[in-house]
Amino acid sequence: MLSITGQTTEAGVTELDFDLTVDGERVPAVIWAPEGAAGRRPLILMGHGAAQHRKTETLAARARRYARQFGWATLSIDAPDHGDRINPEDAAAMARDITARVRGAAREGSGPSSIFKTMGERARRIVPEWRAALDAAQTLAFVGAGGPVGYWGLSMGLVLGVPFVAAEPRVTCAVFGLGGVRPKDEAFAEAAAKITIPVEFVFQWDDAVAPRETGLALFNAFGSAEKTLHINPGGHGEIPAFEQASWDAFFLRHLRD
Amino acid sequence: MLSITGQTTEAGVTELDFDLTVDGERVPAVIWAPEGAAGRRPLILMGHGAAQHRKTETLAARARRYARQFGWATLSIDAPDHGDRINPEDAAAMARDITARVRGAAREGSGPSSIFKTMGERARRIVPEWRAALDAAQTLAFVGAGGPVGYWGLSMGLVLGVPFVAAEPRVTCAVFGLGGVRPKDEAFAEAAAKITIPVEFVFQWDDAVAPRETGLALFNAFGSAEKTLHINPGGHGEIPAFEQASWDAFFLRHLRD
Repeated sequence: MLSITGQTTEAGVTELDFDLTVDGERVPAVIWAPEGAAGRRPLILMGHGAAQHRKTETLAARARRYARQFGWATLSIDAPDHGDRINPEDAAAMARDITARVRGAAREGSGPSSIFKTMGERARRIVPEWRAALDAAQTLAFVGAGGPVGYWGLSMGLVLGVPFVAAEPRVTCAVFGLGGVRPKDEAFAEAAAKITIPVEFVFQWDDAVAPRETGLALFNAFGSAEKTLHINPGGHGEIPAFEQASWDAFFLRHLRD
Repeated sequence: MLSITGQTTEAGVTELDFDLTVDGERVPAVIWAPEGAAGRRPLILMGHGAAQHRKTETLAARARRYARQFGWATLSIDAPDHGDRINPEDAAAMARDITARVRGAAREGSGPSSIFKTMGERARRIVPEWRAALDAAQTLAFVGAGGPVGYWGLSMGLVLGVPFVAAEPRVTCAVFGLGGVRPKDEAFAEAAAKITIPVEFVFQWDDAVAPRETGLALFNAFGSAEKTLHINPGGHGEIPAFEQASWDAFFLRHLRD
């Protein structure tokens, strides 16, 4: 199931590329870990945003820092319709659409989304894909099974991550951000209610993609006893840098093995 | 103006007690600093809550930790009607009233508040009192003038702290919590709007004293470009312990000299 496609080491961090096959579809995956890592360690699953991919620069930089600074492993996969699972022309069209949405310039249902899977279809696909990736990662000697597993995902990484985390008991804590529950999203609210692990949720108060009331509704929907909501001014792409330090502190608190 | 009334040193931290006289009234104050401290350092002003006093245990413990861990000085004063500015019988009556309010058992305007100054009167008094205390602290060689000054205050420490911070340009960052703006509190909202320094605001989502919408209104009212709101489930007295680490990180970020 796990087919290794490449391995590089740079500045003390090894990046291992592998492919999964899930429901007949190829799912490219990558895991970062400290060079020469041996034995079980905390694992973070990072769910990238729309029009991004498994090695999006900010995500990869954080994964490398986690390996160097904390000794953690980080796993990332290309979501459906993303990364190596989309052709460059469609990817460019999607990027234009996402940019318009983030700026508040796109209408509901506008854009080239008809050529892509709906977000609901992506979510249905990604749950078994994340499971397969987690299964595969836990067979690696430098990750191991039974250790603490954190999930991190903003925007589409939240939209696809909430159903996955709700369904996957191996995930022990989660950072979500930049998304909400609209009144019609009953299935999404039900998934959020099934999440009972510690959650840190970061929300932008002037987000054109997720209105304020949807963020508060998602915070209310989470079933966790420990859930904390961080609200900052600004738009979808303007999370302050200090929230990264807060994610570090959250994961350090909860990923002790 | 500054009259030293006591000094003790324990576990590397010196606690200096002094009295101020402001508008003819005695205002007891205390400052904690590292033992043998010399030269300018960051200063935190901590505003205690209702029915507490300048040396309330949680506040004093944090002040001592700040001295040991970060080398900072912390200043605290008895608010009007509190600490050494109230007789024991009235203090006990106030404590019963506050306990009832925190439990949601007190009606608006109930309780023995008629024997005390109103919160508005306390706020009018405390602004010059905090100023006098800050003037006095900055004459001490181990604090000095012109360094970074943070304010920290929850509940009454927020209610009295917002007007003070709005009026005092020497304060360079502030942590507030457990309070809000009611629709009728126009003067309070105007004070919050005058605050433009970085603010971290922590709010309890099930607070019987400050309803949700008042917390969101206060967050909206702050004039700061950098303002962050942390919301956690639970009541007035149930701020999670991890918020303390977040206050540390906030002050560490903003109190660099």
